[in-house]
Amino acid sequence: MSETQSFQFDLLARDGNARAGVFHTPHGDIQTPIFAPVGTQATVKAVTPAQLEEIGANLVLSNTYHLYLRPGADLVAEMGGLHEFMQWPHPMLTDSGGFQVFSLADMRKIDADGVTFKSHIDGSTHRFTPESSIAVQEKLGADIIMSFDECAPPYDRKYNESAMARTHAWAERCLRAKTRPDQALFGIVQGGIFPDLRTQSAEFISSLGFPGHAIGGLSVGETKEEMNTTLQLLNDVLPKDKPRYLMGVGSPEDLINGIRRGVDIFDCVLPTRLARHTAAMTFTGRINLMNATNAHDHRPIDEGCGCYTCQHFTRAYLRHLVVSKEMLAATLISIHNLYTLLELVRRSRKAILNGTFDQFADDFLEHYQSTNAVSTPTTNGANA
Amino acid sequence: MSETQSFQFDLLARDGNARAGVFHTPHGDIQTPIFAPVGTQATVKAVTPAQLEEIGANLVLSNTYHLYLRPGADLVAEMGGLHEFMQWPHPMLTDSGGFQVFSLADMRKIDADGVTFKSHIDGSTHRFTPESSIAVQEKLGADIIMSFDECAPPYDRKYNESAMARTHAWAERCLRAKTRPDQALFGIVQGGIFPDLRTQSAEFISSLGFPGHAIGGLSVGETKEEMNTTLQLLNDVLPKDKPRYLMGVGSPEDLINGIRRGVDIFDCVLPTRLARHTAAMTFTGRINLMNATNAHDHRPIDEGCGCYTCQHFTRAYLRHLVVSKEMLAATLISIHNLYTLLELVRRSRKAILNGTFDQFADDFLEHYQSTNAVSTPTTNGANA
Ligand SMILES: [Zn+2]
Ligand SMILES: [Zn+2]
Repeated sequence: MSETQSFQFDLLARDGNARAGVFHTPHGDIQTPIFAPVGTQATVKAVTPAQLEEIGANLVLSNTYHLYLRPGADLVAEMGGLHEFMQWPHPMLTDSGGFQVFSLADMRKIDADGVTFKSHIDGSTHRFTPESSIAVQEKLGADIIMSFDECAPPYDRKYNESAMARTHAWAERCLRAKTRPDQALFGIVQGGIFPDLRTQSAEFISSLGFPGHAIGGLSVGETKEEMNTTLQLLNDVLPKDKPRYLMGVGSPEDLINGIRRGVDIFDCVLPTRLARHTAAMTFTGRINLMNATNAHDHRPIDEGCGCYTCQHFTRAYLRHLVVSKEMLAATLISIHNLYTLLELVRRSRKAILNGTFDQFADDFLEHYQSTNAVSTPTTNGANA
Repeated sequence: MSETQSFQFDLLARDGNARAGVFHTPHGDIQTPIFAPVGTQATVKAVTPAQLEEIGANLVLSNTYHLYLRPGADLVAEMGGLHEFMQWPHPMLTDSGGFQVFSLADMRKIDADGVTFKSHIDGSTHRFTPESSIAVQEKLGADIIMSFDECAPPYDRKYNESAMARTHAWAERCLRAKTRPDQALFGIVQGGIFPDLRTQSAEFISSLGFPGHAIGGLSVGETKEEMNTTLQLLNDVLPKDKPRYLMGVGSPEDLINGIRRGVDIFDCVLPTRLARHTAAMTFTGRINLMNATNAHDHRPIDEGCGCYTCQHFTRAYLRHLVVSKEMLAATLISIHNLYTLLELVRRSRKAILNGTFDQFADDFLEHYQSTNAVSTPTTNGANA
């Protein structure tokens, strides 16, 4: 199978700028728009692959930085690649390692050729270049792999100019370094909140012929309005016949706003991280199951939800698990949160196919109570 | 349905002293011999009820002491009882709380009427009597409930004499206190390693007409030989037409040795606790998945095992999860360990029905490499 056949993107319907499509990969079709759960260390935390399948997950992301350090890309390759290693037979995506290496702050040093960094695990010194990132991702063997890029703080113009230039040069090196025909390499657009840089970056990256385009440098500190404005701009510049992947985005309202502006693929640790911090996501906002108001509540998290958790367990029971620090809490809330986001993209897709997405999105946003991200214990930036 | 019908014990076959039977409960039949996973705080740690069902679990134990403190027996009753609360529709058993209260050491004070103790959670003061233990267990609503007893250190003759006398007096009080016809109250035999006390206790407890008998005070510090000698003795004294439950026993060789001496029911935290400490149980001994020897191992934990974990995951992957401190490790190893013990009792039952149990047990013990319990972080005795 040629790369072109493997990674064809069929656009089935458009509704405004929202799109419903199918992206073909060697491990099956991805129905877009889609949300990808994150399996940082070759496992979506607290859930089994069987539970992920039951939720209806399809594309799963894993992190090159983490897998490179532990257990190592050679070991994953020796075990038959990431699909086989973690027993996810459906499509997979790896990031380039860049985002996590750059977030190591004082533990890394960037030059034109790449980045030297210290492991957050044992302090040992390592180096990523565009070529080595691709080599590692080829050993891991995901269906979609990412260019090595530099993500700058959103408001720093100078930094964004240089990071964008570096990202562009590295994108070309990644393309040259790539050898496996059964992997689709996506290019990444940078440029912070600056419209001219974003336009320039999208035009340049689009010109390189990638089978898909990722939008980096969003959801990293800018406002939601700035994110939406940037997505609107990129929707007009990025080619319509390739999938667009908004990296690291994950709240329900961000998914709806992204889909509305032509985004096809999302990933985020939010649903599983929130679950480990006792918060449940719903179509109307967040519920903290630790709250005493749940103690006697006979209802499931969401009465309209079809997930295993909501089909069986009361809020009172989930609160008991949370208060008692039982592992099952993380599992059951993760199942619910992931199901909620997957159900949100499934319903969005249906609405797009029916030509009713605008109404669906308006209704959703009207009833949704936005929450600022709950504070989670900050460790180092390398933690996904 | 009358209590007698509900809790009938049908002895289907005997092979030497080993027995295959069926104990009827309001939540279904228990095929004996059986091993009961422990759900200390109304959850078998790290596994969902659906995963427990897939493993073939049937009887599940939960701890009165823990549930009484958190979330409280009234809350469990308000939520429809323990079966409904934790969504286990099959048979359940609760202990009396005695064992855990007595193991609180300097946080409890015993008198003839009961025990006053301090909560390990917040230090608050509480009191259990035979009557209050039964009242709590009636609120929890398990199918099998236990008499409030005192378990003495195995070698202390004086202590065992007084604890036995107390256990006997409390057994009569528990019988009088019990009101629910849909629960079977089991009496508990004590007496340490002293044959005359054990005989006396078994004769007295048997005379009270309980629908089943539990053997307490074993696996608490005595040798395996002393445990086996005691079980042999009790096998001759306890009535044959009632099920016998060996409390807190759980290693593979102990199950085989217990079944060989007429035990029908076992429970233990061992499989799930070992799993959280990275150890897998097999028919030939234990494997510590943390060991570097597993790093490149393509094999499952046990090539002959039919569990979800062994059907999918390599030792290399499990070691990666363990080293990376991923929650999925506890889940996958717990599934395997529980499956192993359940498979062991299923095979034992089949062998008894076929009249080949002695050969089965000899083969098993010949190939099994016994391990002393792995050291686990000791907290206070109240932790199951
Ligand atoms: Zn749900
Ligand atoms: Zn197994």
